[in-house]
Amino acid sequence: MTVAQEFEAANEKYAATFNEGGLPMPPARKVLVVACMDARVDPAKELGLSKGDAHVVRNAGGRGIAAIRDIVISQQLLGTREIVVIHHTDCGMLTFKDHELHAKVKSDLGENADHIAWLSFSDLEKSVAEDVVALKKNPLVLDVPITGYVFDVNTGKLTKVEA
Amino acid sequence: MTVAQEFEAANEKYAATFNEGGLPMPPARKVLVVACMDARVDPAKELGLSKGDAHVVRNAGGRGIAAIRDIVISQQLLGTREIVVIHHTDCGMLTFKDHELHAKVKSDLGENADHIAWLSFSDLEKSVAEDVVALKKNPLVLDVPITGYVFDVNTGKLTKVEA
Repeated sequence: MTVAQEFEAANEKYAATFNEGGLPMPPARKVLVVACMDARVDPAKELGLSKGDAHVVRNAGGRGIAAIRDIVISQQLLGTREIVVIHHTDCGMLTFKDHELHAKVKSDLGENADHIAWLSFSDLEKSVAEDVVALKKNPLVLDVPITGYVFDVNTGKLTKVEA
Repeated sequence: MTVAQEFEAANEKYAATFNEGGLPMPPARKVLVVACMDARVDPAKELGLSKGDAHVVRNAGGRGIAAIRDIVISQQLLGTREIVVIHHTDCGMLTFKDHELHAKVKSDLGENADHIAWLSFSDLEKSVAEDVVALKKNPLVLDVPITGYVFDVNTGKLTKVEA
């Protein structure tokens, strides 16, 4: 049995009592959140989001600099006017260097992925600040409030990072 | 008051009763989900995910082809061995063509973003199938089960797409 089949069974139960239809497309709270794909991260719960509140982008590390496509679409077409970037403790991106994964892809897959910037990092506060500063400087991103945080996967706490 | 400040207040309440610490970094169910950043989408609820279960990537449209960096990191470093791609009804990506947003960025921001593929689409089933096929063909992606779905934001139901 695939996990996809388990998802189908879980979704049947979910849909049976679903009552959150009819919400508009643009996020009600006009905010876009960038967070990590990590399995221990759940932005809706951590930030108190209701359905329809916010765009939630998730990628490896929660890298804002990897979310430019998403941010431009969100701001230009769907009216968001604030960005929140969240990285987290015990992140997989802290466990390797970009050149190591490039080498692993070559040795294990026989492929060259040198064109992909993995955007690994070695310091959480620095990576958050780097993302916030880069978004503030990016001419494709509107001049809106951009705030960065570290989420602690063991305590559930958000800590603000000054950029 | 920024939305970020509202998030800080909501997070204080969340952290006060948090008891899901200590989970391992690799996803327990060895699966990566790609879904849309849309505010009406909440993969954890729709798929019955518990904390620690799955990598959840979210981007504009839920495009698998925009998640190669995330998928390689997930598979090569954190052991996931299945992919699920979910697009959804009433998606913003259905409302524009790539060339229109390129033109809007030029006229409204005075910037050239022609290097960014927005990956808009006009047919939901086709966009899901296109993503599944593209991932299956990508030599950087392992030969694992890849399943595609459309999520209906008004009924909460997942419908499988044959690729």
